[in-house]
Amino acid sequence: MRNIKLILEYDGSGFSGWQWQPGIPTLQGALEDAIRKTSGETLRVTASGRTDSGVHALGQVVNFHTESELSPHSWHGALNHWLRPSMRVLAATEAESDFSARFSSKSKRYDYLIINRRMPSPIHRNHTWHVSYPLDFEAMKEAAALLLGTHDFTSLRATDCDSEYPVRELRTLDLTREGEMIRLSVEAGGFLRHMVRNIAGTLVFVGRGRFKPGDIPAILEAKNRRAAGPTAPPQGLYLVKVDYE
Amino acid sequence: MRNIKLILEYDGSGFSGWQWQPGIPTLQGALEDAIRKTSGETLRVTASGRTDSGVHALGQVVNFHTESELSPHSWHGALNHWLRPSMRVLAATEAESDFSARFSSKSKRYDYLIINRRMPSPIHRNHTWHVSYPLDFEAMKEAAALLLGTHDFTSLRATDCDSEYPVRELRTLDLTREGEMIRLSVEAGGFLRHMVRNIAGTLVFVGRGRFKPGDIPAILEAKNRRAAGPTAPPQGLYLVKVDYE
Repeated sequence: MRNIKLILEYDGSGFSGWQWQPGIPTLQGALEDAIRKTSGETLRVTASGRTDSGVHALGQVVNFHTESELSPHSWHGALNHWLRPSMRVLAATEAESDFSARFSSKSKRYDYLIINRRMPSPIHRNHTWHVSYPLDFEAMKEAAALLLGTHDFTSLRATDCDSEYPVRELRTLDLTREGEMIRLSVEAGGFLRHMVRNIAGTLVFVGRGRFKPGDIPAILEAKNRRAAGPTAPPQGLYLVKVDYE
Repeated sequence: MRNIKLILEYDGSGFSGWQWQPGIPTLQGALEDAIRKTSGETLRVTASGRTDSGVHALGQVVNFHTESELSPHSWHGALNHWLRPSMRVLAATEAESDFSARFSSKSKRYDYLIINRRMPSPIHRNHTWHVSYPLDFEAMKEAAALLLGTHDFTSLRATDCDSEYPVRELRTLDLTREGEMIRLSVEAGGFLRHMVRNIAGTLVFVGRGRFKPGDIPAILEAKNRRAAGPTAPPQGLYLVKVDYE
């Protein structure tokens, strides 16, 4: 058995999220179809995590165990042959037999892109969140600094998040602005469900004056999803990178 | 009669170019349909120029003469109601009766985006030209400088270009690089057919060493399309701005 590790980039626009569902175009389903066409095997792949419908990835990591003798190089070429252009294998390597894209991961980076201008953008509509009201970028940066570090993120996780432990350490939380585009970059050992989108939604609430930056500690202390801002839409979110030991 | 001037942004991916064609999804056709639904009028709009299939616009300018009493503000809202999200009216104003989006234009700016990395990018596939071989950016800049100014651009126009006069003045020709992305920005009073795409294709030929920067004068002097590089694909091209007096 070989354990093949893939790095994938995909445009989530045309897919109903990562996770396999019968009769629905999902990213996992598309990859497993491509594997079946390549080696004849019907198998399940393991991803570092599931991305929601509309969410993109620049560096999703996946692994699967195969009986096939195909080299990683051949898998790389064959899978890209069968996959749609909206999904690409960027790299394929052979991993240790006990490597799991999900359980071996040490940290992840996500970016969230906001286009801040009055009119929606046709060009960027599937790849950014359009926020039409003016945003106070400095206030957003001040609020972001207060989210950095280790906190109980109950207020910023989906109410149906099934993680047992709501404490996470945000190691990086950068906000940069270039023209109309605001980029939020976050890195942590792990994230709770919708955590990045809820951070983005909460920072936008700060940017439009609905919250003050100084409200952030109370929002965290409330440990209540309703204390924070809305969930930002999926199309602004990118899984950028997954790090392993 | 009112003469309504519109500024449009569009993602050219889902359209067969600007120009109206029967039974085919074109940008002009979509706009004229939206006008018909708004005021009941069947009319022809005039654009600053036709963009090819797959080409985008951040600031296409269009005008049309209408019997309707609707204010520009109402046109703005109504057209955006009827248009698909891949096409947006950014501004609507009333113009002088003799204003023509096509004949009154004084200069235009186009950008051309190249993504330079080994693997194609799912995220950017409809909005950039993917060039997989390494490019010598400094050589491209050197070549670009030699294209600036007034030249006979016969070698860089489509062989079926029907313009009578092949001399144009490139007032701006900037190349910038940010990570994997190379942006070519050009400005001129007017352009010949495929001129920007042929400039992009020729600069990429310089970047991969097929031409030397010093070959540019001879390419121009040849006045022969075959002397220059290939036509870059449409999806990297953006009509950014049209200036009027």
